[in-house]
Amino acid sequence: MRVLITGGAGFVGVRLARTLLARERLDGRRIEQIVLTDQVAAPADLLADRRVLGRVGKLMPEVQALRDEEFDGIFHLASAVSGECELDFDLGMGSNLDSTRALLDAMRARQQRSGKVAKLVFSSSIAVFGPDPAYPFPARVGDDTLPTPQTSYGAQKHICEHLIADYTRKGFLDGRAARLVTVTVRPGRPNGAASSFFSGIIREPLAGEEAQLPVDPAVTHAVASPQSMVDGLVAVHEASREAFVGRSAMTMPGLNVSVQQMLDALARVAGPRVRALVRPQRDERIAGIVANWPGGVIAKRATALGIRAEASFEEIIRQYIADHQNHPTALKGLKELA
Amino acid sequence: MRVLITGGAGFVGVRLARTLLARERLDGRRIEQIVLTDQVAAPADLLADRRVLGRVGKLMPEVQALRDEEFDGIFHLASAVSGECELDFDLGMGSNLDSTRALLDAMRARQQRSGKVAKLVFSSSIAVFGPDPAYPFPARVGDDTLPTPQTSYGAQKHICEHLIADYTRKGFLDGRAARLVTVTVRPGRPNGAASSFFSGIIREPLAGEEAQLPVDPAVTHAVASPQSMVDGLVAVHEASREAFVGRSAMTMPGLNVSVQQMLDALARVAGPRVRALVRPQRDERIAGIVANWPGGVIAKRATALGIRAEASFEEIIRQYIADHQNHPTALKGLKELA
Repeated sequence: MRVLITGGAGFVGVRLARTLLARERLDGRRIEQIVLTDQVAAPADLLADRRVLGRVGKLMPEVQALRDEEFDGIFHLASAVSGECELDFDLGMGSNLDSTRALLDAMRARQQRSGKVAKLVFSSSIAVFGPDPAYPFPARVGDDTLPTPQTSYGAQKHICEHLIADYTRKGFLDGRAARLVTVTVRPGRPNGAASSFFSGIIREPLAGEEAQLPVDPAVTHAVASPQSMVDGLVAVHEASREAFVGRSAMTMPGLNVSVQQMLDALARVAGPRVRALVRPQRDERIAGIVANWPGGVIAKRATALGIRAEASFEEIIRQYIADHQNHPTALKGLKELA
Repeated sequence: MRVLITGGAGFVGVRLARTLLARERLDGRRIEQIVLTDQVAAPADLLADRRVLGRVGKLMPEVQALRDEEFDGIFHLASAVSGECELDFDLGMGSNLDSTRALLDAMRARQQRSGKVAKLVFSSSIAVFGPDPAYPFPARVGDDTLPTPQTSYGAQKHICEHLIADYTRKGFLDGRAARLVTVTVRPGRPNGAASSFFSGIIREPLAGEEAQLPVDPAVTHAVASPQSMVDGLVAVHEASREAFVGRSAMTMPGLNVSVQQMLDALARVAGPRVRALVRPQRDERIAGIVANWPGGVIAKRATALGIRAEASFEEIIRQYIADHQNHPTALKGLKELA
């Protein structure tokens, strides 16, 4: 089978590709080729696999070309992030809504010519849940919570969920939207997103650098490791159509955890000197944004499919450490202070 | 002030225009001009009013031209209907989604040039509520019910609600979506919609013609008269922004009534011989569609704004009769059999 990953050079896309290559199979079928499209090139070692084809280019022409190319499964991960969409409305509408619509229309055109229905896994987000003053959040949001997005990013993701549901109902494709929780520990540098500190307060101390904590440690949030997110995307692809019944969107599991619990886990895994590199420095802007986020998730339908987030935050930290054994600077704090 | 009504030659648009002309004011301001756009011409007597300007043309170029024209209030009623959208997917996406998006973008461009925020009232529908097997309807749907549309029409309306909410949140316009219930008694001929019989079983007997009843008389539904629907649209336009809080969509009130109660009301208003013109003739296709519709609405937020549907179905029948005093053929059954 042939698999496409849009946003395939991003850190989730790369991890998904590696996971699929290691599994060798998807939906019980041998994976012959994985195409990675992105605006930048995928890592060289991934491209060296003879099953991998990398394409660098803009998303819109890439998805429009899918009218003439057959894939059995598509993971649509390419997306502008929340902060970008809020600053640049047109960018968000183009990258997140118009490109997805063009992808759906290309899949539909292909289906109508070939008669074959391809699978689509769409990376949605719990950002579809916004803090509507008339409809306060339940303590934990889930499949039955009314989405009232309060960011352009959340609105665009939710609109795409509904498009995918209708294209699926019409038989043009077999679409599933996975509402992802905040991924942590995200590698690399802070990215300016309001959620950036959920990774920063672990990643920076492990590297021996100070990190600012902009919110109260009592703040709770739903998080998942990069690997559990990738495993969830694969499980969503392999789930039966019936598991989604009349809806195509599914809230993915997360570990509901307080910032204090995250810091306690860091102390247990890496010692108090690493933990001490996290300095409380309240940022009213970030604290205000985060205060409007759901405090956790209940992922009833995904859990019924066997999809799981980690059971403890220590596991998430250990995954990051294991991932970076060959990157000594990333673990400088751990090695020198633990 | 200047007001635009898209779909302005349709029966709701015409009634809305007449209502606004009679009120002379909207939002406390004098109405200087009402522009009616539609694919057909509005009635001559309406166009004879010096405050009315009719434009005949396709919706898309009409709304794109709004970049260069200022309106204080827009009622966006133009829409392909449910049955059409299910038969012709592209028609529905173009008429209901793309045209609305173009309207929003034109209003945004205008706002960014002028700094003025215009009001938009969008005719949504309780078709946003679909029969998701995993999320059975409550007996009566309302503002807190999770929309899981199961028709392209319902999906397109719901997507537009979310677009309008986000364009509003960004300050590009002041948008409100009114989820309309089934209007009855709709004048004219049966239109092929599955809901057509809700008007036919009253309209045809009053004209002295037989009508088929395709469903069980125990079926319940939310209905409203054309005038209460129009009054509701005006009230939604005049409502404060705060009345909508974080959401721009509002479920409109309906009279929750069984078909049996409708027929009993017809007998009381027009006599048993008129009532006897309704013949049970079950249509499995229509009965199946209607069985998946909500049995009624609870319109909490709209009711708080003072918006009301009729309190009895007799009132709705009497409105239709009063509307048609000068159309003897429409009331032939009433005059000859009552």
